[in-house]
Amino acid sequence: MPGFDVLTIGNAIVDILARTPEETLVELGIDKGAMTLVDMDRAVGLYERMGPAVEMSGGSAANTVAGLVSLGGRGAYFGKVANDTLGEIFAHDIRSLGIHFATVPLDGVPPTARCMIFVTPDGERSMSTYLGACVEFGPQDIEPEIVAAAKVSYFEGYLWDPPLAKQAILETADIAHAHGRRTAMTLSDAFCVNRYRAEFLDLMRSGKVDIVFANEAEAKALYETQDLGSAVSRLAADVPELAVVTLSERGCIVADRAGQAAYPAIRVDAVADTTGAGDLFAAGFLRGYTEGLSREHSARIGAHAAAHIIRQIGPRAQTPLSELPDIRALL
Amino acid sequence: MPGFDVLTIGNAIVDILARTPEETLVELGIDKGAMTLVDMDRAVGLYERMGPAVEMSGGSAANTVAGLVSLGGRGAYFGKVANDTLGEIFAHDIRSLGIHFATVPLDGVPPTARCMIFVTPDGERSMSTYLGACVEFGPQDIEPEIVAAAKVSYFEGYLWDPPLAKQAILETADIAHAHGRRTAMTLSDAFCVNRYRAEFLDLMRSGKVDIVFANEAEAKALYETQDLGSAVSRLAADVPELAVVTLSERGCIVADRAGQAAYPAIRVDAVADTTGAGDLFAAGFLRGYTEGLSREHSARIGAHAAAHIIRQIGPRAQTPLSELPDIRALL
Repeated sequence: MPGFDVLTIGNAIVDILARTPEETLVELGIDKGAMTLVDMDRAVGLYERMGPAVEMSGGSAANTVAGLVSLGGRGAYFGKVANDTLGEIFAHDIRSLGIHFATVPLDGVPPTARCMIFVTPDGERSMSTYLGACVEFGPQDIEPEIVAAAKVSYFEGYLWDPPLAKQAILETADIAHAHGRRTAMTLSDAFCVNRYRAEFLDLMRSGKVDIVFANEAEAKALYETQDLGSAVSRLAADVPELAVVTLSERGCIVADRAGQAAYPAIRVDAVADTTGAGDLFAAGFLRGYTEGLSREHSARIGAHAAAHIIRQIGPRAQTPLSELPDIRALL
Repeated sequence: MPGFDVLTIGNAIVDILARTPEETLVELGIDKGAMTLVDMDRAVGLYERMGPAVEMSGGSAANTVAGLVSLGGRGAYFGKVANDTLGEIFAHDIRSLGIHFATVPLDGVPPTARCMIFVTPDGERSMSTYLGACVEFGPQDIEPEIVAAAKVSYFEGYLWDPPLAKQAILETADIAHAHGRRTAMTLSDAFCVNRYRAEFLDLMRSGKVDIVFANEAEAKALYETQDLGSAVSRLAADVPELAVVTLSERGCIVADRAGQAAYPAIRVDAVADTTGAGDLFAAGFLRGYTEGLSREHSARIGAHAAAHIIRQIGPRAQTPLSELPDIRALL
């Protein structure tokens, strides 16, 4: 078994991205900037109102491992698609990057998950996700030898939405720790944090997860506070190893029980689409972390990867990140 | 029946676009810059070797009508998809622009056509097309009232590849002319011209097609000459109304039996992907033509539309073209 730098686990989703005027979000009743779960009927209705779109593999944790590999790391992924066209596209896009992906696809219904991403003129994305085959992801999909072989197992908070995935994550954490590996998670979305606050806190406090990534809204939501400083301090106290809080154009804070440090973002003048910004920051940070680089250096790789992804449409880099001069210099 | 500026007819295709090193084209035996037809086995084999991709509706004539509508024109489209996921995506992307599209999708196999587009670092695209459901497009798919209601019926030379489409085109031309409308075509591709040279010449000389769009390689291929001037003169003599020959960064020549004029291209410093350049030039030119604007003005709209599309990935504009300041000033 070859080693992996990072295994990520998440909802395996194909994104459908379209530019949308602000008014349309209001008309359609979509929460701006959030990820909202929708059923098939609502998904069909929204798609009918959506403009011409681009399709691209997505899924938060899948974007992160795609970014990690694009940065020169070795990656693996667990996630459930169906045996259908979108599932083939998803599997192709992951495997063609050299990522280990062997989760057995679901035969029959429900179909592969899709996320309609409405991108407003300010570059912000608002997501409506139909989970489809992801609801069948569970403990049977964990490959223990892959978990054991990965320096970090990283999973998304979104996995608390489907019914069986959380059990798979708990088992993954135990396998990882039994092999001296690290676990990490992203809190995913402030609404998601509101749905699963107690469970997320328990994951950290029980030591199941060593490293937590959160953006400002998620960190504040976790502790039901408007005070960022307080949220960061409490997160750093709750997480065994490392809390990484991203602040968009204000950079990030990396904190542990001993203290915290702030690192800058990379300035981007023309934001095309923020889809994937957090996912790619985590990819860059983990690329540095798994190479044993400093927190500052890791945060810088993350900032560059995030800056690159928001200059383009969609969450997967269209050019290998490791070939970009500013990023290559950091690797 | 509302009027249409342009009806386009073509192979209804979903594009699968990926960046590819030059070496990979050679390894895969792909003709650079050309469109090559492939069967399902070859399509599967090529896809396995392709990098992570983006999916987007394509098809030359469909790109043209999408561009025309994005420029504020009224458009209709005939083309055959299957009743499957890619077919739904294609139909959605056309209809969400407000384009009339009512061709009955094919039930069962073959599936919706797809074109794998390998984009090399110079921005050039090389295409491998599996025609799928397009081979079933035929005279039964012509909606005579739409043809009658369109100022211009425009079709792609690629339609000579599937077996039944050419008959549909001949009937379309007769309906259009019976209603005092114009017909137009694109020669599509130099290899396509080599396959159907005699038939294309006969279309012009018999008066079935009034306006012809060609790029330099296609015009030269049509007359089996290396001399551009000779090719343009002969094309202008063969085409009843207008020959429009595009020369990439050197602009275009618009010619008829009375003479010819050259118009410049718009300079583009960073070409991301040339996919759709010719399709969007035709869209812009026809937008002007159907508004009764001068040839020079029409060529300028075409040049701007083409310049915009080669700065992005894929042949469909991700922002309405009529909202771009340089283009808005021309409409």
